[in-house]
Amino acid sequence: MALRSALLASAAGLSLGAHADEGMWMPSQLPEISAQLEAAGFKGDPKDLAVLTKPPMSAVVSLGGCTASFVSPQGLVVTNHHCAYGAIQLNSTPESNLLTNGFNAATRAQEVSAGPAARVLVTESFDRITDRILADARGKTGRAYYDAVDAASKAAVAECEQEAGYRCSVANMYYGTDFYLVKQLELKDIRLVYAPPESIGSYGDEIDNFMWPRHSGDFAFYRAYVGKDGKPAPFAQDNVPYQPKAFLEVSTDPVAEGDFTMLAGYPGRTFRHRTAAEFADQVQSQLPARIDLYGALIETIEGAAAGSADAGVRYASQLASLENGLKRARGELEGLGRSDAVDVKAKDEAAMLAWLAPRADAAATRADIDAAQAVIARSHATRERDTLFATMRSQTQLLKSALQLQRLAAERGKPDPERERGYQQRDEALIEASLKQAQRRYEPAVEKAVLAELLSRYFSLPADQRIAEVESVFGTDAAQAKAALDALYASTKLGDEAERLRLLAAPPAEVAASTDPLLQAAAKLLPAELRIEDADKAQEGELLRLRPAYMRALIGYRQSQGSAVYPDANSTLRVSYGKVSSLDPRDGVHYGPLTTVRGIVEKHTGVVPFDAPRPLRDAIAKGDFGSTADPVLGTQTVNLMTNLDTTGGNSGSPVLDANGRLIGLNFDSNWEAVSASWMYDPRYKRAIHVDVRYLRWLLAKVYPAPRLLEEMKLPAE
Amino acid sequence: MALRSALLASAAGLSLGAHADEGMWMPSQLPEISAQLEAAGFKGDPKDLAVLTKPPMSAVVSLGGCTASFVSPQGLVVTNHHCAYGAIQLNSTPESNLLTNGFNAATRAQEVSAGPAARVLVTESFDRITDRILADARGKTGRAYYDAVDAASKAAVAECEQEAGYRCSVANMYYGTDFYLVKQLELKDIRLVYAPPESIGSYGDEIDNFMWPRHSGDFAFYRAYVGKDGKPAPFAQDNVPYQPKAFLEVSTDPVAEGDFTMLAGYPGRTFRHRTAAEFADQVQSQLPARIDLYGALIETIEGAAAGSADAGVRYASQLASLENGLKRARGELEGLGRSDAVDVKAKDEAAMLAWLAPRADAAATRADIDAAQAVIARSHATRERDTLFATMRSQTQLLKSALQLQRLAAERGKPDPERERGYQQRDEALIEASLKQAQRRYEPAVEKAVLAELLSRYFSLPADQRIAEVESVFGTDAAQAKAALDALYASTKLGDEAERLRLLAAPPAEVAASTDPLLQAAAKLLPAELRIEDADKAQEGELLRLRPAYMRALIGYRQSQGSAVYPDANSTLRVSYGKVSSLDPRDGVHYGPLTTVRGIVEKHTGVVPFDAPRPLRDAIAKGDFGSTADPVLGTQTVNLMTNLDTTGGNSGSPVLDANGRLIGLNFDSNWEAVSASWMYDPRYKRAIHVDVRYLRWLLAKVYPAPRLLEEMKLPAE
Repeated sequence: MALRSALLASAAGLSLGAHADEGMWMPSQLPEISAQLEAAGFKGDPKDLAVLTKPPMSAVVSLGGCTASFVSPQGLVVTNHHCAYGAIQLNSTPESNLLTNGFNAATRAQEVSAGPAARVLVTESFDRITDRILADARGKTGRAYYDAVDAASKAAVAECEQEAGYRCSVANMYYGTDFYLVKQLELKDIRLVYAPPESIGSYGDEIDNFMWPRHSGDFAFYRAYVGKDGKPAPFAQDNVPYQPKAFLEVSTDPVAEGDFTMLAGYPGRTFRHRTAAEFADQVQSQLPARIDLYGALIETIEGAAAGSADAGVRYASQLASLENGLKRARGELEGLGRSDAVDVKAKDEAAMLAWLAPRADAAATRADIDAAQAVIARSHATRERDTLFATMRSQTQLLKSALQLQRLAAERGKPDPERERGYQQRDEALIEASLKQAQRRYEPAVEKAVLAELLSRYFSLPADQRIAEVESVFGTDAAQAKAALDALYASTKLGDEAERLRLLAAPPAEVAASTDPLLQAAAKLLPAELRIEDADKAQEGELLRLRPAYMRALIGYRQSQGSAVYPDANSTLRVSYGKVSSLDPRDGVHYGPLTTVRGIVEKHTGVVPFDAPRPLRDAIAKGDFGSTADPVLGTQTVNLMTNLDTTGGNSGSPVLDANGRLIGLNFDSNWEAVSASWMYDPRYKRAIHVDVRYLRWLLAKVYPAPRLLEEMKLPAE
Repeated sequence: MALRSALLASAAGLSLGAHADEGMWMPSQLPEISAQLEAAGFKGDPKDLAVLTKPPMSAVVSLGGCTASFVSPQGLVVTNHHCAYGAIQLNSTPESNLLTNGFNAATRAQEVSAGPAARVLVTESFDRITDRILADARGKTGRAYYDAVDAASKAAVAECEQEAGYRCSVANMYYGTDFYLVKQLELKDIRLVYAPPESIGSYGDEIDNFMWPRHSGDFAFYRAYVGKDGKPAPFAQDNVPYQPKAFLEVSTDPVAEGDFTMLAGYPGRTFRHRTAAEFADQVQSQLPARIDLYGALIETIEGAAAGSADAGVRYASQLASLENGLKRARGELEGLGRSDAVDVKAKDEAAMLAWLAPRADAAATRADIDAAQAVIARSHATRERDTLFATMRSQTQLLKSALQLQRLAAERGKPDPERERGYQQRDEALIEASLKQAQRRYEPAVEKAVLAELLSRYFSLPADQRIAEVESVFGTDAAQAKAALDALYASTKLGDEAERLRLLAAPPAEVAASTDPLLQAAAKLLPAELRIEDADKAQEGELLRLRPAYMRALIGYRQSQGSAVYPDANSTLRVSYGKVSSLDPRDGVHYGPLTTVRGIVEKHTGVVPFDAPRPLRDAIAKGDFGSTADPVLGTQTVNLMTNLDTTGGNSGSPVLDANGRLIGLNFDSNWEAVSASWMYDPRYKRAIHVDVRYLRWLLAKVYPAPRLLEEMKLPAE
């Protein structure tokens, strides 16, 4: 008898396009997959899900980077604590620290502004405008194709935004195959209503990040306000609550493994439909190179900051971000290896091309696909150099400031619509904030060490990769670079915030002609930046033109297998469905899909991030869980795990039951799922949510907010 | 509705003496608990288990520190790889490293000696001789009581050992309540038969130590040989295999959660029947003090050894042992806290005393109990000092050597039976080995730093705790200690191995009169050592006299609850029973009771200790598991978890099914069970075993040993 191990059998069986619970579907696709939705247990009408102006979809909103949802007819919004973090921080003072103490507005009048930048964006329409966007591009190639698409997109957005109170954008679906005009109502008076203490909202914080079992109360409430005329308006004391077209009903039912669930939100970016060559490149080059570079930068910054407590503080956030990037890259590499992603994708692509071969349009399609592959391959040739050059800007403060100032000076000479994205008038406030922020994150010795490390890597590139402008500024070897860096940083005035802000306001000609050595260096580097950007755009234009052949082949091939294809995530509204799911992360270990308050007590050490506040610990000890207790477990649940298909941007997404009622708030993924941005592996892909019963219990018994429970028509205990 | 959390309910319900699966029973007790054994699923006759000369008990043997069992009529013995480690190492050469490659004797002639010190001890009788041991002690107290027990024990042992081929000992049960004469056949020609490579036998090694899920093939085979007359004899080429009175049948059945299991072996030491005050002291003083001291010693040694690779190597083993002790102490403290042990024990003791109060013998019993408590409390008064003094010996090499040499010189003046245990003629070989070993584990700077650290702690003790001899050698403050240490180590000759061995052979008077400064220091310290030892013995005598009152009250109280009491472990043969058990170590996490080869692949990194050898990985990939595959999991199991009651010394213990057939070999406990030496918490106490099916598969398919499979009457594949 020759048995195959369960693992080997399962790995061998992993294939693409065939997982019942995979997919970030456009709402408009849901009627198309209604059979599988219903088979999975959805009890509503899939056609309703496609209508953005009807419940439940119209209740799901974007905060810009996070997702949220309306949960009352009076504009009450629920999202993650970490999505409301800035607003909570903004309203904190040394005397009244809302991060530490939480916030609980006793009346509507006590609700406080989440700040002038806070937004709630309600997607009202999502219209396919492919023909309009591509009309002028057809027949063009490269940079011209890119410019045509860019101009048509800007025009469509400008036209759409003529209606006051709306923000519009053009979303590119299936890598240039389709374009959609997204129109969002832009609510600007957002107020903080309720937040648990940080010790609940981010219990476990960085240590538990990506981990299960999890015990976080990562939720907070906002309310959206509008002017008395019902239209979006900036904060004003006498504004009135916005009355949404729909709001979600909060479930009062228990939840158990296997239950149907659905999630809607604004997932940021996935790469599932990239080519097999891109998969191989990610695993064999990109991720190892990133791990190497981030590791070296961390070592460099730590080394240069060692001994100076002040430098340590200034670079803490940059280091944390590099560490997080390193952790993610390692997790992604590990996960893609575990899923055998390169091989699985290669086999799938080969099968697709074999399916394509005998078809009528095969030759033309295959020509485009081959051309796309060639463009991608060429882009890899200068990638290391381009990464190093981009990192000189992204990992510095003063050099970045100098480059920003010179670039803005250059862009200001053009009419606003022709200015580069990121340097238009609407972006100047952001640039100012960045120039101010530089102050708190900079130390000359550290910045010089970072640049020296990047330049030493640059000097080891082959000769045909060199950038003349870099060499004219920094020389051609490490010794010259050291001397150049010492000279630049010894006499630049850009370390002075007032000087940076003065230059931001100064006439472009004065900036360009400045004698400040760092500004002069930036002026020398700018042509290289523009040249690389131009090459990128030409390449992007080619890929916009050519990738649709690959995507259409894939869609056709999947259709032949009986499957639909969702577009890769791009921050537009998507819907996933799946079920409440346990996880077997490794041999012998089984993670149940529900955690309970027992785990809060077990993890509590009294030290951040495991410092459960006394009222919570007392309430757990008391054991009075009322209507929110799980009837099977006989205790209070905290977090919930599903196999829903999510990625960054899905933070705060509502998790719904088969009847569309709110049962959870998405806030994280498990470690094993970091690689899901490239490949959904049903064995390991899980999403982590706040169980809405924990939220209800906290509002009922721990930090009571009877007003909100009543507003959501929930039991008082 | 007010529900209590499952955790709180369970913790509140934890009580002593009531767990079905707790207990390290003397075989003679098993008929007494036959009802509960049968209720648990045992299918044999519990009366048979009490007969040490019948199967299965006569098949279970001691290796001295480890347990093993006969598995064939030709003296084949199975135990843990880590128990046979020394024998495997002894037979390794640079050309043929058996640790790396494993060992597989193709014929009986190729079986190699496990070394002159290797033993297989077969317990043949276990007789209660309480009256004989206590006859002379009754009416005495303190040191006199101790000496009477000691003399009677030595006499009983000497008489028993008059029969050639036997080793005897007196075992103290229930803390002086009963004494048993243990008579063991001492087999001295032990040969190594089979060992997997270390990369299987200790897969995961220190990293996985105490961990589940586990994937270790921690087993090896010995064979016991005797002279042609069938009597124990030292190694001789023409000795013949020993034919045991019984051997275990190896099971060919599958194993599943909930199955009855039983384990026999020689557990070392437990403290379950210590007093509530001792529990509180362990948690509140002993463990925190140990954690503090070990932490400081680790820091001191690392600091003093830093910069010298050589010193690093010399102290690696001492550091590893301190780290392990620190880890265990932390685990014990954590576990006792989790089980609320202090409170549970206090409540149980109070209930016992309340049960005792109205009884006829209450006054006398209570008087002894109170007196015992007072002795224990007094012993705590000088404990910190005594620990520091003992540590000066145990954590040094040269000072220890000097103290050993002076003590031996003093003891050699007495008739052998009166010499202190550890310094009798039979012990001199061990002392010699220790003096030789000192060479490889010593560096003057490190030893001086360790003593300086201990002395600095000593100097902060209250004045009434001081030891005059310590001060006469090391002075009264840190500066004097430093000068004294520098002087001692600058001129001592004890760093020379030849000199130490010369002194071992020298006449006692010469040693006592030596001018070596360290030997002189040891001569000065010796009276303090003897004084503290005397005080310890007087205290031990009192506790031998008084603790039985506590134990008898406990036994009576448990009887009133319908429970029997097993004695605390003391390295004598014991039997536990329980079941194949999963574990929920913390909220949301469930560990299944069986691991599979999938986990070996998952953990494999190619780097020790996760360097699964290629033949194993190939065999796993091939998936040919034959008759050893688990029918439910459809793959090959590796390790097995039960709730059997075990402790150190149970390594190698056979795990039996309901019919007494071998299904596993015990080799470790889980991290959550480190505190089980004090309290058995059924929620967390688990034992970790090699699944015998993994052993069979390795012997059938990976490193084939058809000869052994045939000998054990097992399928060839």
